[in-house]
Amino acid sequence: MPHIYFDNAASSWPKPPEVAEAMIACMEEAGANPGRGSHSMAVRASRIVFEARTLAAKLFGIRNPNDIVFTSNATAALNLAIKGFVCQGDHVICTSMEHNSVRRPLEYLRRTRGVQITYLQADKQGKISVDEAAAAFRPETTLFVCSHSSNLLGTIQPIAEFAELCRHNGVKLLVDAAQTAGTVPINVAEEGIDMLAFPGHKGLLGPQGTGGLYISPEIDLEPILHGGTGSQSEEVDQPSVRPDRYEAGTPNTVGIAGLAAGIKFIMKETVEQIHRKEWELTQLMMEGLRNISGLRILGPDLGEDKTGIVSFVVENADASEIAFQLDREYRIAVRAGFHCTPLGHETAGTTATGAVRASVGYYSTVEQVECLIKAMEEICRGYKNQGKEKN
Amino acid sequence: MPHIYFDNAASSWPKPPEVAEAMIACMEEAGANPGRGSHSMAVRASRIVFEARTLAAKLFGIRNPNDIVFTSNATAALNLAIKGFVCQGDHVICTSMEHNSVRRPLEYLRRTRGVQITYLQADKQGKISVDEAAAAFRPETTLFVCSHSSNLLGTIQPIAEFAELCRHNGVKLLVDAAQTAGTVPINVAEEGIDMLAFPGHKGLLGPQGTGGLYISPEIDLEPILHGGTGSQSEEVDQPSVRPDRYEAGTPNTVGIAGLAAGIKFIMKETVEQIHRKEWELTQLMMEGLRNISGLRILGPDLGEDKTGIVSFVVENADASEIAFQLDREYRIAVRAGFHCTPLGHETAGTTATGAVRASVGYYSTVEQVECLIKAMEEICRGYKNQGKEKN
Repeated sequence: MPHIYFDNAASSWPKPPEVAEAMIACMEEAGANPGRGSHSMAVRASRIVFEARTLAAKLFGIRNPNDIVFTSNATAALNLAIKGFVCQGDHVICTSMEHNSVRRPLEYLRRTRGVQITYLQADKQGKISVDEAAAAFRPETTLFVCSHSSNLLGTIQPIAEFAELCRHNGVKLLVDAAQTAGTVPINVAEEGIDMLAFPGHKGLLGPQGTGGLYISPEIDLEPILHGGTGSQSEEVDQPSVRPDRYEAGTPNTVGIAGLAAGIKFIMKETVEQIHRKEWELTQLMMEGLRNISGLRILGPDLGEDKTGIVSFVVENADASEIAFQLDREYRIAVRAGFHCTPLGHETAGTTATGAVRASVGYYSTVEQVECLIKAMEEICRGYKNQGKEKN
Repeated sequence: MPHIYFDNAASSWPKPPEVAEAMIACMEEAGANPGRGSHSMAVRASRIVFEARTLAAKLFGIRNPNDIVFTSNATAALNLAIKGFVCQGDHVICTSMEHNSVRRPLEYLRRTRGVQITYLQADKQGKISVDEAAAAFRPETTLFVCSHSSNLLGTIQPIAEFAELCRHNGVKLLVDAAQTAGTVPINVAEEGIDMLAFPGHKGLLGPQGTGGLYISPEIDLEPILHGGTGSQSEEVDQPSVRPDRYEAGTPNTVGIAGLAAGIKFIMKETVEQIHRKEWELTQLMMEGLRNISGLRILGPDLGEDKTGIVSFVVENADASEIAFQLDREYRIAVRAGFHCTPLGHETAGTTATGAVRASVGYYSTVEQVECLIKAMEEICRGYKNQGKEKN
């Protein structure tokens, strides 16, 4: 029996076959160092990276592909955006739904650069109020950082409305698209996003080791990495030209080749269709799970827009026990624990127990969702009987 | 006719077939996020990363695999080591043979943290004098950074002697093993190296997108990246435990799987054998090239120890023209230009022209070397005749 994989919010699996094929072809035919040499293989490697940049630009409505910088993951992209932008004494607005990849860089800047941070408190469904956001701006505010969708609850935030607030206040908006790149339509130009951090190995269906950051041409960041770029080698400073300025060292060409294949696949299927399909699976999952006695679903109610995440807790049971049982007895992979978002758990009231997170992906099926529901029915029945025996 | 690839100093090609096989297997069977979940696939992913860490530790004589941190390339490792270690007002010793991945981070710290830098001047062969190094230490010196082998000349530096000086002066030694990891024996414990930065995609025969840093247990670095680690998620600080402290975000598991396969391959062949084989090829290449009129070989003389690099210039010819001819007319890939090491070019006296660099690798053959020699004979004859016609 094949394993049922419901941990797509951590890393999507499986990938379209084209991804591995593109990676193998890259290693066989373009295994040189892009941008560091003019021989045919180096040129081929450069073309692969350029093609991926062009595809990502098209996907996110970005005019100039060179405004996209490839990074090793979304965390590296967020670190570059946050540490490269925020200065001594700045005030930053973010939310209680942020992942540690936003919270920890910000808290580091609080310690080292005296940065002030406001965490907007989400409601139980994980939603941030636009009114409360509007009230948080101060004269020293320079940056608004917002997770497009919570990695715990799947709630989608009103990014365009935040962007409007930011524009009005002369503040830049950084969106963490860890859960939405490839699964929720994003258009940087239309939505007024100034920086967009995205992973390659989740919704974009690329391999691990890839990700990127869109940086509006109006923004100049201090690079996080300094080093060789294959350009302006005689200068002691990083070159000012993009993307070289932010891409020191040999890129992950083979990973980027896989990412390009992932993006191509998604563009063919369309993000709208993928979002619809994943949403329908979450609705089916919630309909099945909500009837199980002792099980409580977290986050948005049935019928509301969300990403492919369904998190839940079971009365009298530790989340990690449930995940363990699902894995060993039913061969269903879910994630239990804190998902690197302690504030999210405070919001959901699950700090003590953690939560079980089942996250669907492009290849998830109705049958798999039904298996999970059936498994949870059995597991919860077990806990209930245990409870009765104890009484 | 297959392409002859003499650009292994930029990125090795081809890789052993095991590398792509390990990557495919990883994507098919362990495509989950390591360290972020306890389900079987996440555990399998964690095991792959742990196995790679253990292999790298064994290769470099490192006692505790957790003192190795995986990074996206050697540049990221060097940035972490340099920026994480050097404080306001420190003095750092490095050499005129450093790559921009060392020079640019140091110059950045000069601008932002008032760091003082001494560049030890190499001789024409690229060698740094131990006596001159000894004289460079000051009371404020905290770090000695040294490229183990020049990426322009192939010269190997006396690392153990520098380590002895460092120990004596209470200074830490950071070695940039970009050109030596996998091709020159390195034993961190025996040689007294405190930090070792290495790429995965060169001598270790792994894929691009991989690399790492060994950090002595005595050293605590400020991380460059803050974010999710799958551990101590409730803390706002990076966890103190290694390697998590320095590995925020999803690692390049698929790349690391390939790297493990590359290291395994190298350990079976032994680094000693690989070094010997590459050295013999460079000697053969130098013997052939040195008889060509108008061609001047840079760096160590025949018979001296070096890595698999032979750089040269041709009278009256631009290096990039030569590289272009080799690529288009002979299908031989070499690199021309400045190789991200402007100081190295000052040392070699080739700042105006750049140099042609032919770098051999594990899969290079005697026949390929002979092809290059023959090609260069023809090319140089052409330049000579042109010169005669002009006169």
